[in-house]
Amino acid sequence: MTEIETILRQSLPEASFRPPEPRYLEEPRGRYAGQAVAVLAPASTEEVTTIVKACAQTATPIVPYGGGTGLVGGQIAGEGTRPVVLSLERMRQIRKLDPVGATMTVEAGAILADVHSAATAEGLIFPLTLASQGSARIGGLLSTNAGGVNVIRYGNARDLCLGLEVVFPDGTVMHGLSSLRKNNTGYDLRHLLIGAEGTLGVITAATLRLFPEPAATGAALMVVPDPDAALALLRRVQARAGGGLSAFELIGGMGLTFLDEVGPELRQPFAARPDWMCLIDLGLAQGQDPSDLLEAVFAEAHEAGLVSDGVIARSEGQRQEFWSLRESIPEANRRIGSISSHDISVPVAAIPAFIAEAPGRLAKIGDYRINCFGHLGDGNLHYNVFPRQGQSRADHEEARGGIKTCVHDLVHEMGGSVSAEHGIGRLKVDDLERYGDPAKLAAMRAIKQALDPKGIMNPGAVLRAP
Amino acid sequence: MTEIETILRQSLPEASFRPPEPRYLEEPRGRYAGQAVAVLAPASTEEVTTIVKACAQTATPIVPYGGGTGLVGGQIAGEGTRPVVLSLERMRQIRKLDPVGATMTVEAGAILADVHSAATAEGLIFPLTLASQGSARIGGLLSTNAGGVNVIRYGNARDLCLGLEVVFPDGTVMHGLSSLRKNNTGYDLRHLLIGAEGTLGVITAATLRLFPEPAATGAALMVVPDPDAALALLRRVQARAGGGLSAFELIGGMGLTFLDEVGPELRQPFAARPDWMCLIDLGLAQGQDPSDLLEAVFAEAHEAGLVSDGVIARSEGQRQEFWSLRESIPEANRRIGSISSHDISVPVAAIPAFIAEAPGRLAKIGDYRINCFGHLGDGNLHYNVFPRQGQSRADHEEARGGIKTCVHDLVHEMGGSVSAEHGIGRLKVDDLERYGDPAKLAAMRAIKQALDPKGIMNPGAVLRAP
Repeated sequence: MTEIETILRQSLPEASFRPPEPRYLEEPRGRYAGQAVAVLAPASTEEVTTIVKACAQTATPIVPYGGGTGLVGGQIAGEGTRPVVLSLERMRQIRKLDPVGATMTVEAGAILADVHSAATAEGLIFPLTLASQGSARIGGLLSTNAGGVNVIRYGNARDLCLGLEVVFPDGTVMHGLSSLRKNNTGYDLRHLLIGAEGTLGVITAATLRLFPEPAATGAALMVVPDPDAALALLRRVQARAGGGLSAFELIGGMGLTFLDEVGPELRQPFAARPDWMCLIDLGLAQGQDPSDLLEAVFAEAHEAGLVSDGVIARSEGQRQEFWSLRESIPEANRRIGSISSHDISVPVAAIPAFIAEAPGRLAKIGDYRINCFGHLGDGNLHYNVFPRQGQSRADHEEARGGIKTCVHDLVHEMGGSVSAEHGIGRLKVDDLERYGDPAKLAAMRAIKQALDPKGIMNPGAVLRAP
Repeated sequence: MTEIETILRQSLPEASFRPPEPRYLEEPRGRYAGQAVAVLAPASTEEVTTIVKACAQTATPIVPYGGGTGLVGGQIAGEGTRPVVLSLERMRQIRKLDPVGATMTVEAGAILADVHSAATAEGLIFPLTLASQGSARIGGLLSTNAGGVNVIRYGNARDLCLGLEVVFPDGTVMHGLSSLRKNNTGYDLRHLLIGAEGTLGVITAATLRLFPEPAATGAALMVVPDPDAALALLRRVQARAGGGLSAFELIGGMGLTFLDEVGPELRQPFAARPDWMCLIDLGLAQGQDPSDLLEAVFAEAHEAGLVSDGVIARSEGQRQEFWSLRESIPEANRRIGSISSHDISVPVAAIPAFIAEAPGRLAKIGDYRINCFGHLGDGNLHYNVFPRQGQSRADHEEARGGIKTCVHDLVHEMGGSVSAEHGIGRLKVDDLERYGDPAKLAAMRAIKQALDPKGIMNPGAVLRAP
């Protein structure tokens, strides 16, 4: 037994040890294989500090582990000294729910869907919504500053968090579970830890913002001729719905073709597969009618030539059908198998220019299919490149690097980001070095060195291990 | 001439030197008197780097200076080595305004009111709104994470900023003027610099979020029996207005008494001065009528015994009158002269309990008048303690410390903040040490040391100078 194993066995209860099952050492796309000296699931913040102190003492790396749904390898360390995998899965208590203040304090291992349920039981909502909500955990969602479909209305994960409890790399605990809306007392370490992907400390609990459940919800799918029209449609919806617009998703025709090709099988709303359509989701206050509003928007947009067809949900069931369609596209993508996937953002106004320019550049590399969809109002696209029908991603393995660079170079030229919502993890460390601002990177390294001088917290994620 | 003066004279144009006028060396309440080896007003980011590098070379402190409106002495260094005062007043260009993307990139010296005007000219708004907007500058507003009356709807200054250009203490420049809504590429240094009060670098420019101008605005004053009723009224307005509630201010009766006593003279809406009233401000989308909504809220709240009287603005002029009343209270406070002022926050639901408890505790110290008003929906009160009529603050000078500790201890017991929106500056360094989380403070010091090893950036602000 190594020194760290001995210390851990002496200082932790048996229940905190987990068998090193594959689920702790793989990531969804199978691109990383990890290793571990131990997989630990502490039951309390105190146990987390015990683990972190033991690791600090023995210079053992720690990989914080939430739901394992990250797409950039932040949760998997395959190189260097074998790490302790620190899973928050047993810390999933709701410590406090304040319906009047509309806040909830939860431990980092709470699953997003459970947080949703707890809020709903009080007539409130926690609006962070994304495909992996049945397994993603709050600690991971905050550590990666997760996005999802409701960012346009409620912001990213960071905007939904009022306070954090964090175990720093020296084992000290920051007791920052504030539920205050305003608090200007020193550096905002909450925002520094959120999005740091476990490289500066372990988030053990968080105080989250809740919101009133909208009095009425509604949704529509509208067919637009091109992304420019989609953007103009977005402006019109915003003018009528104000802050009541919950989501505005752009869906490219290739996603619908993929669904026809490989499923999941579901009813498509338009007989002819449109090149572009928008999924509009509303959550309105008392006295406003979503269907009336969507009909008025459609009439006005149709008159202006911005939409050619559309369907407004007549029931909550139909609204859910629209969302199933949208959420099935990533599954269809997985079944086809992308050569290279890109989670990019550009300034919102530049979305049409990006969509116009990228295919021509990619055509110079090879003959591909592009499935482009995403969160139009946030300027965030999932821009994924696939083989032609009958070919597989394996046929294009050697092209992946070139495709990625082609897309990311264009994004960078347009002032965009090569990771809009997934983070850097281990997958995009090169990209951050290539595109990141040098002064920002130097400051990040200085902060990492200051807070984690031994380099034990998730080494190799975000910043290259020294 | 000292070494730093020699270097500066050699490397900067004459126009960048300002006479060391009192306005650079005093703060609004006259509690701090500063000194300076030079007052500099650079014309460009390049000149800022020249200054910072010269100061780094000679270990000369730098005090970044915006509009000089800060209330906690962050802009005034009276002790230690004479600093360079670095005023951003000449850097006030709007570098870019993107109406489609709804963003504006401005230099740090831009005055808030000018930013408002530039946005309005494009049919957009920049919603940060506070009493000092005619002189406060963007760099200072971001460095202190300013709040104001519209936080309930649009958030603090940090929530309104997408990107920053910053000169770090070593003179390197972070080119981070991103206008992206989503960007998860590394540590969020933007949020670290915002609210750091110039202790980690100099903000030279920022990209700000703009918002659509609401289609219709409206306001009302409603008389409530107590803060509990005010909170219940807030919930009812939120249920009807959704995201359309722009501000919800609680106004205590003492403010109205002070206006009667010392002015400014203005028409008060209720013949009998109510103990408590709420100023409700709405900005609604197309198709919604603010007056109808406010009338419905009033009828419902009256039925429920939450309001006893009210007046709804019948014109934009009347809405402005309501706001003049609210904004005149700080001026009346100044004329009376507070013994001790407190910018505090507690969890929103705890506001009534705080207001109920504090007077009894203060009565044990002495016989005072309390003017309590503020941003109820944010849990943020300006809780100011005054002498009885006929006495002056000078009569109670020796009681100030005890009063402050009394109020701040109660705030701390209730999980609140002793600086909700004004920051720490030099005034509250002791408070931060007394009430701050030790692990957070240690991490702050480590970050300060890492980014500013020579300790030249605004030394003594936020953190005690070593």
